[in-house]
Amino acid sequence: MAEWKNFDCLAATKELEAAAKVDLTTAMAGEAGATRAKTYCVPMAEGLAFNYASRPVDDAIMASLQKFADEAELTDKFAELYNGAVVNTGEKRLVLHQLTRGQLGNTVTADGVDKRAFYVEQQTRIADFAKKVHSGEIANANGEKFTTVVQIGIGGSDLGPRAMYLALENWAKKNNAFKMEAKFISNVDPDDAAGVLNSIDVAHSLFILVSKSGTTLETLTNESFVKDALKNAGLDASKHMIAVTSETSPIAHSSDYLDAFFMDDYIGGRFSSCSAVGGAVLSLAFGPEVFAAFLDGAAAEDKTALNKDITKNPALLDALIGVYERNILGYPATAVLPYSQALSRFPAHLQQLDMESNGKSVNRFGEPISYVTGPIIFGEPGTNGQHSFYQLLHQGTDIVPLQFIGFKNNQAEMDVDIQGSTSQQKLCANVAAQIVAFALGKKDDNNNKAFAGNRPSSIIVGDKLTPATLGALLSHFENKVMFQGFAWNINSFDQEGVQLGKVLAKKVLAKETDGALTVYAQMLGI
Amino acid sequence: MAEWKNFDCLAATKELEAAAKVDLTTAMAGEAGATRAKTYCVPMAEGLAFNYASRPVDDAIMASLQKFADEAELTDKFAELYNGAVVNTGEKRLVLHQLTRGQLGNTVTADGVDKRAFYVEQQTRIADFAKKVHSGEIANANGEKFTTVVQIGIGGSDLGPRAMYLALENWAKKNNAFKMEAKFISNVDPDDAAGVLNSIDVAHSLFILVSKSGTTLETLTNESFVKDALKNAGLDASKHMIAVTSETSPIAHSSDYLDAFFMDDYIGGRFSSCSAVGGAVLSLAFGPEVFAAFLDGAAAEDKTALNKDITKNPALLDALIGVYERNILGYPATAVLPYSQALSRFPAHLQQLDMESNGKSVNRFGEPISYVTGPIIFGEPGTNGQHSFYQLLHQGTDIVPLQFIGFKNNQAEMDVDIQGSTSQQKLCANVAAQIVAFALGKKDDNNNKAFAGNRPSSIIVGDKLTPATLGALLSHFENKVMFQGFAWNINSFDQEGVQLGKVLAKKVLAKETDGALTVYAQMLGI
Repeated sequence: MAEWKNFDCLAATKELEAAAKVDLTTAMAGEAGATRAKTYCVPMAEGLAFNYASRPVDDAIMASLQKFADEAELTDKFAELYNGAVVNTGEKRLVLHQLTRGQLGNTVTADGVDKRAFYVEQQTRIADFAKKVHSGEIANANGEKFTTVVQIGIGGSDLGPRAMYLALENWAKKNNAFKMEAKFISNVDPDDAAGVLNSIDVAHSLFILVSKSGTTLETLTNESFVKDALKNAGLDASKHMIAVTSETSPIAHSSDYLDAFFMDDYIGGRFSSCSAVGGAVLSLAFGPEVFAAFLDGAAAEDKTALNKDITKNPALLDALIGVYERNILGYPATAVLPYSQALSRFPAHLQQLDMESNGKSVNRFGEPISYVTGPIIFGEPGTNGQHSFYQLLHQGTDIVPLQFIGFKNNQAEMDVDIQGSTSQQKLCANVAAQIVAFALGKKDDNNNKAFAGNRPSSIIVGDKLTPATLGALLSHFENKVMFQGFAWNINSFDQEGVQLGKVLAKKVLAKETDGALTVYAQMLGI
Repeated sequence: MAEWKNFDCLAATKELEAAAKVDLTTAMAGEAGATRAKTYCVPMAEGLAFNYASRPVDDAIMASLQKFADEAELTDKFAELYNGAVVNTGEKRLVLHQLTRGQLGNTVTADGVDKRAFYVEQQTRIADFAKKVHSGEIANANGEKFTTVVQIGIGGSDLGPRAMYLALENWAKKNNAFKMEAKFISNVDPDDAAGVLNSIDVAHSLFILVSKSGTTLETLTNESFVKDALKNAGLDASKHMIAVTSETSPIAHSSDYLDAFFMDDYIGGRFSSCSAVGGAVLSLAFGPEVFAAFLDGAAAEDKTALNKDITKNPALLDALIGVYERNILGYPATAVLPYSQALSRFPAHLQQLDMESNGKSVNRFGEPISYVTGPIIFGEPGTNGQHSFYQLLHQGTDIVPLQFIGFKNNQAEMDVDIQGSTSQQKLCANVAAQIVAFALGKKDDNNNKAFAGNRPSSIIVGDKLTPATLGALLSHFENKVMFQGFAWNINSFDQEGVQLGKVLAKKVLAKETDGALTVYAQMLGI
């Protein structure tokens, strides 16, 4: 059994604190910089690579990071997780999202079943269902095919699946894999559901109600909204809805749904894109083969996370450098910057994944800690971000480490040549240029035009964003977040911080408030 | 003439540093908290109110903030700006975006013309053009009406207009003001244009090329992409495109466009939503009357920014409390959290507005400064964010001040009653609950379920998001950013930090690289 120790109790932490800092303005310059750019690179699955040349490490710091990984037993802790230990100590639960895409260790039994077999069974059931929808065997009351699928869910039931759908929409259209358009309703703001319902043909729409507990307030409210719309259109709601939920939830075996597909308590919402939560909508939108390829990519990348050697384990290395930047260098935030419009909502998904997992102030034993944990995560796709917040990244008073993502080729394979280069070449030239601009900066007699440089970044680079590379990307960040949680000795798998607001909102609705809460409720017309 | 002094040279700054800190867990509790919630509130235009009860100030700190405003001559500096001084010292330009929506001071003459008259003239020309498009007087080659308008622009030509369009789409549909669907192409990633072109009927689409200089690489590339698509559809591109640009740009008087509408160098991209940049697309989408109401809301809110009394000037007060949180309390970021799905991209717009304006490390004279400036800005609409990154906001190790926005009523006026309350009531109950949860926290014997509280927030609250309230909201944040720039003695109106990346990207495309940049370029297939 691995020993769980606080970050500031490790010898390697002291070593990292004492290590000489790297100055990227010199490390990345000239031929030495070129050598770094070539060699500080770890292969990932599906032809991706994680290049960390422009992160603030050198061979000495890398050695200390390896010592840290060993001393903190990070890969051993991962092994405990995938072998079925109760790693989610707060909620006393196993953590099994990796099992949706592969078996990394021993058979894991819970609730009396082999959980890998359970997840595969759900995938098979979803695949069968999706094929019947696509063939028209499952159709609307008039026997017409469903053309649109609408996911009703919030948080992890929304952000991940939505980001993955957007990531593959153009690819699917180009590769004859586009089966149904997908839409998403999440916010309890009724204008969200109203907007989506205004934009679709409900008679040809299939709705997926996604709620693990079957009791999520926002989601049930939006379901009710949708059912009203179906009823008003003279349709039988139960013929237009399926459920994704846990087997024990009140909606698991209800005649209100055409069918139900199951997840369980061992997969947190933010880690559920590979479960039925992502599986149903993605299999319906693009076909089960596409979803299977996505899972395969994630499974392949998960295997790289087993390596004890940090130069062969990109998620672990990314995690450790991030911890170094956060705790030793004191940087408060990390930006995720995909140079791919298809990844427009991937940063929003990572924002949840990372901030909800590691925004904690107590260790896994519930003891207060005296070091910082998860950073603020934000981002937008490049080149858009360059024309927005990059000013602060280049010349602001805080340093923000950057996680670039780039692909040699686009998805739609439509392009135009202007001023001697294609759009894709311009896109790639920009991300290459940004890495070097952030690292090296530029001297100028006019301080206003000078760039201090020494602003760290890494890049994950690949050939093209496909279902498999998307799966690998997702796995990378899920495992990075997990390793960082281990490094900080926190429980990355609960989210007690969301409870208080829920409790107080219920009090407002029940008119059981006092003090300032009464005033705010009145101010908002309640 | 106001005197421009660094933030750390002011007597009021020392006073603020020395002031006793406010603990919101006590200040916001009980009857005292209720009194704060009622009284720490400033009326805004259009029935909005700025409530700052849960920000970390008290009467003593407010008095020091007023001294700061007076000593730094913040409203005097605003007066210089709207009276036409060269406030953008870096680029030696006037700063006139407020003039697009009203005349706050003297007649401002530049380039030999009355600039207010110039902006009104452009609005009138756009209104006439939009009416002709809506009536079908301006139509496609077959005499059929245009049904879709597509904005081609990046940065300020994209984020602001896109956020405003989304903010009013549901409202317009409900209020018979929805004239044309709008789409946006921004990213140089060819998949962006491909995705939009795949989703529209080009034969009935009108494209707006938006580039102040007429030379923005991304925008010209996307224009070329669109022209190819029009040509391939057998259409005459010049009959489907208009331009928004400066009068001196190469595209200002070109037969490639049906018409051209003008902005100028005195309006930065991120401040251009009220100029022709936002005016053309919003007038086409919703009609010129809607755009006029939006401008009127902004103009009304601008007037509140004239007050020297910080308790009557919501933008100034919000700015000063933000500076206090950033520089005295040391908080690195601010989250923008609208409880309105319609404002889904408003945080992304504010991210540009704020981070590009105030992410600076030199003062307006080009001298290095030794205090922090603009924070990181991020956000997503509530209640979605509650199921995402709020975990870190409640229980993370860093404190992030929050800017809530809420409305008593929704736009679409469709709602559903479930568990005894409507969706809208649930939405409003949640934002009220969050303010109090963040301020007061909650003790618990289980540290994992405990909330430290003392996490500041304010809320802008209104009756409904309409064109006029949206204009007022936009003005509030534009003026807040401006006042913060004045407080930090920086130039908020240039963006030299975006230049280096552009220069290096050009070198990559010209194959004029060396060192690490060559390696990165090769890695990305160039």
